[in-house]
Amino acid sequence: MAGVARKTSPRHRSGCPVNISLEVFGDRWSLLIVRDLMVRGFTTFQDFLESGEGIATNILADRLRRLKRSGIVTGERDENDGRRVIYRLTKKGIDLAPVMLEMLIWGAEHEKTGAPPAVIAELAKTRRAVVEETRRRWKERDPAPLLPWLGGPKRELSKVVME
Amino acid sequence: MAGVARKTSPRHRSGCPVNISLEVFGDRWSLLIVRDLMVRGFTTFQDFLESGEGIATNILADRLRRLKRSGIVTGERDENDGRRVIYRLTKKGIDLAPVMLEMLIWGAEHEKTGAPPAVIAELAKTRRAVVEETRRRWKERDPAPLLPWLGGPKRELSKVVME
Repeated sequence: MAGVARKTSPRHRSGCPVNISLEVFGDRWSLLIVRDLMVRGFTTFQDFLESGEGIATNILADRLRRLKRSGIVTGERDENDGRRVIYRLTKKGIDLAPVMLEMLIWGAEHEKTGAPPAVIAELAKTRRAVVEETRRRWKERDPAPLLPWLGGPKRELSKVVME
Repeated sequence: MAGVARKTSPRHRSGCPVNISLEVFGDRWSLLIVRDLMVRGFTTFQDFLESGEGIATNILADRLRRLKRSGIVTGERDENDGRRVIYRLTKKGIDLAPVMLEMLIWGAEHEKTGAPPAVIAELAKTRRAVVEETRRRWKERDPAPLLPWLGGPKRELSKVVME
């Protein structure tokens, strides 16, 4: 492992890509933000704050900063409301879709979760199509949540589209 | 999300399976231990300690305890050396193979890592076969590292088999 480590930037603890992935997307709060952007149609600080896991304001601000620094998320001022930032996954961010999907399947298979088992079985059977549909929605800025049973943003989707 | 949360055990912050997965396998140190067991043929406390990322002794002990409590890892006394514990992934643990593989591919594609690009391209093309081979090695207790460029345990593999 030491040999691999030496070939890469000293800012990482080793050159192993699994380790670097974990260092880059950081902790579970970061991945929950990525999830909210990826499959729930969430786009604002307020959306993430009300997400259900009870993230603290300072942790949320820090993780959004880190995700931007890692090139996983962009934040742009809302044209109609300059105080509001609209967050969006980058290409690098949406490429986390397979990681996210596998975590979802694993969690649903091995733990008691709120996910309908039939939906999970279907997702597991159609992995590739699910990832492609996730990419399509991201590319076309389609705001409909991919997994409606996870819940969408509190405001009406029609309002999001019109904003 | 609140609706989903209520259906599940109060020990989790929400019923979302992605959240529960992240709560269960915890932080990046836990996943690095899973990686070492899964693809590097590591089995002992000492192996994990010398793994390359410089995990601290107390963190390693804590994460092994948590992984056992979550049913991801088992630890059994070495028959020939009662002071030594041999760790092994459970079925639930080896089921993390697709999560691990997707993290590996994502890291290698988006960051500068020590992984040979040709190997990663091949892994990405043959995802299903890689996961199946990982499972086979686990099932048959085949100690050969799956990804030799990641490095194996410091002691000879032949010794591991004979121990």
